Amino acid sequence: MSGQPPAGGGRKRTKGETALRLHRLCRGKIQTLPKCPLRGLEDLAVWYTPGVAAASRAIAVEPDRVYELTNRGNSVAVLTDGSRVLGLGDIGPEAALPVMEGKALLFKHFGGVDAIPICIAAQAEAEIVALAQALVPSFGGINLEDICAPKCFRILDALRAELPIPVWHDDQQGTAIVVLAGLVNALQVLEKRLADVQIALIGIGAANMSVYRLLIAEGAQPEQIIACDSKGTLHDAREDLKAAREGYREKWQVCRETNPKRIAGGVLEALRGADVCLAFSQPGPNIIPAQAIKAMARDPIVFACANPVPEIWPHEAQAAGARIIATGRSDFENQVNNSLAFPGVFRGVLDVQASAITDGMVRSAAYALARCAKDRGLSEDAILPRTDDMEVAASVAAAIGEQAQRDGVARRQASRDALFRDAMERIRGAREASRLLLDAGLIPCLPQEP
Amino acid sequence: MSGQPPAGGGRKRTKGETALRLHRLCRGKIQTLPKCPLRGLEDLAVWYTPGVAAASRAIAVEPDRVYELTNRGNSVAVLTDGSRVLGLGDIGPEAALPVMEGKALLFKHFGGVDAIPICIAAQAEAEIVALAQALVPSFGGINLEDICAPKCFRILDALRAELPIPVWHDDQQGTAIVVLAGLVNALQVLEKRLADVQIALIGIGAANMSVYRLLIAEGAQPEQIIACDSKGTLHDAREDLKAAREGYREKWQVCRETNPKRIAGGVLEALRGADVCLAFSQPGPNIIPAQAIKAMARDPIVFACANPVPEIWPHEAQAAGARIIATGRSDFENQVNNSLAFPGVFRGVLDVQASAITDGMVRSAAYALARCAKDRGLSEDAILPRTDDMEVAASVAAAIGEQAQRDGVARRQASRDALFRDAMERIRGAREASRLLLDAGLIPCLPQEP
Repeated sequence: MSGQPPAGGGRKRTKGETALRLHRLCRGKIQTLPKCPLRGLEDLAVWYTPGVAAASRAIAVEPDRVYELTNRGNSVAVLTDGSRVLGLGDIGPEAALPVMEGKALLFKHFGGVDAIPICIAAQAEAEIVALAQALVPSFGGINLEDICAPKCFRILDALRAELPIPVWHDDQQGTAIVVLAGLVNALQVLEKRLADVQIALIGIGAANMSVYRLLIAEGAQPEQIIACDSKGTLHDAREDLKAAREGYREKWQVCRETNPKRIAGGVLEALRGADVCLAFSQPGPNIIPAQAIKAMARDPIVFACANPVPEIWPHEAQAAGARIIATGRSDFENQVNNSLAFPGVFRGVLDVQASAITDGMVRSAAYALARCAKDRGLSEDAILPRTDDMEVAASVAAAIGEQAQRDGVARRQASRDALFRDAMERIRGAREASRLLLDAGLIPCLPQEP
Repeated sequence: MSGQPPAGGGRKRTKGETALRLHRLCRGKIQTLPKCPLRGLEDLAVWYTPGVAAASRAIAVEPDRVYELTNRGNSVAVLTDGSRVLGLGDIGPEAALPVMEGKALLFKHFGGVDAIPICIAAQAEAEIVALAQALVPSFGGINLEDICAPKCFRILDALRAELPIPVWHDDQQGTAIVVLAGLVNALQVLEKRLADVQIALIGIGAANMSVYRLLIAEGAQPEQIIACDSKGTLHDAREDLKAAREGYREKWQVCRETNPKRIAGGVLEALRGADVCLAFSQPGPNIIPAQAIKAMARDPIVFACANPVPEIWPHEAQAAGARIIATGRSDFENQVNNSLAFPGVFRGVLDVQASAITDGMVRSAAYALARCAKDRGLSEDAILPRTDDMEVAASVAAAIGEQAQRDGVARRQASRDALFRDAMERIRGAREASRLLLDAGLIPCLPQEP
């Protein structure tokens, strides 16, 4: 395991400066380009007046034809209010734009999906919900991003209940899919069973709240779980959370359901005797001390997923006895990376014109992801597939599409094989287009960093 | 002049069917593609985590850097509620999407601008205004499109007053620019002066209301003008409009300002003795009868701009004595086509990071457009430039950018020459990218229609 931390502060600053310089050179990460031939005025008469009137009329008569006659069926809004961007907090919608553009870049590169960054100047729950509702006619799906808890829970729930298109909060479901896939494989490597393990959730924001829900859907019992926030372990004697239970009802529910022994304390107490540590809390290191890992059960599994610095450095966790370690970073093994999930999930829902993303579809995506890693060969250092494997998104897409049909939310029917094939073709096309633009000098060809 | 109407109903139907078939084949007109190199995981670390954090942090500290570090400075929202789409009326946001996609295609092809179709499920004035406000952080400008009168006036006025980015309603300002350019040149060809002519406005919706305002700004006197709606000529004895003046205050203002002699009647009476007919009313033919053209002054100028069929066929207008005839159609000479204006206007405002589009900028765009036609050689059949001339948008952009600096609404300074050169380069790049995708088979290469 390449568990070394990067070199000190000087080196890190240089990387940021380089990134800034390259951002300045490119002035953005995505652009629009034609999807249809426009060679001259004759083609214009097809795509614009007068020809376009035929398409508009057809949709006015039969609204579902919008999927056949426009790009709606491949378009996703990446919607944020900028209230919790990366590890940077509430930096606002303008400052969120580089991240949303990056997301849109990944959507196309990994999933062949046309994603549009929509950073909105609105903060109230109801406003954001109304805005997402108003955007529906242009998009085949909505990806919520970097919206802070607890309002992200309410917004997602409201939109899932009301909108006729799939809504997804990547910081919730996307993260939960990758964690479940990694956990399933980690348990298999160590020959443990989900039903038997004790699990500590360090941090209980958007990510771990969704992980919690998915673990329960997966058959774990709440009694197996202890959660911990910045103030300590959760249990039903947490008077602060009881008092705030109106605003934080999801968190209070965890207090009531888990930790029946009311084990008090912090990270150390949450981890004592646990088989699994799932941490999405705050940038480390030293959020999880080595001694807490030492206090875990035999052969512990540690997901330390804070960005940019994990709650404990992998080499420290390993030295303290962790058998399997995952982080959010690409420079260590076992990267818990949402881009393993969302491109395939949306590729899948768009390809069957799903009206929703059910919990069953979320689980099927996790299992598809776990399967991709298994096919490559599981080991302590390889519980998850690599992001740059093109087949991953296609496999997830096929699983999602198939499950959507089973769950009765698909408007188009297609076999798993056909879905996989079509997804591969789309993704290949997106990458080829990107390469063409680069080779022709129409995208700046920057020197690759050493 | 190629003033023949197209062949009968059968042929026309076939064209619509062809357009529908081609729409089905391409499933949309624009897509997203990278604007930056993404060759592997190393590049990802620049454009997404961890590198992107540097860009987000920089913008959080200094919001204006969003123009330097993202594509906001080249992005425009094409916003509609679908309440007045083409000549099709209130067909709703889904049915408007093919048109908005077409618009986005033109934005890129003619102006190198990345435009995003946003078709919204909201109809009330206040809702649309709130929505546009919320979208500001992602876009460098907003192009309102196909929103019905009179709410389009209020929405444009409110947004122009409140938003820190340029807002434009193409059916108002865009049309007015092209009409003014064409009119200026037509008058020159016939050696008439704006101050001396009598003008009839047939139809007084978004287009002609904006034409009216621009003519007045240009120095025309309201007394030179008679407007006419579907109920007859406008004057201050129109009791129906007086009663409805709360809802239709712009129209009532025209009643009070123009037609001091209170000439009553319809199209015929409005045109009697007029030198200029500017019609944006309803699809013809026979909305303007030949006898009305005969009743005009000597050497009449007739703009019959209803789509898809002009208020009078050009050959009929010509037979009735019209000297210069313009329509909205590409198959006749003198096409009044908004794509002569909006791509260059937005190219210009984006390139100087203008905070608004002033009336002065609108006029400067009209004069730049008129100049483009003059440079090519004016004649009765050539009062406007051709849409496919790449220099048109660049010339308009340079004029807009220069005027924005004069009017104090530009955040970036650049010479007219530099603006022209940069615009040409952008537009050339957009077309080259499009051709590359087509040649590589990544855009379907459809058979060109005969």
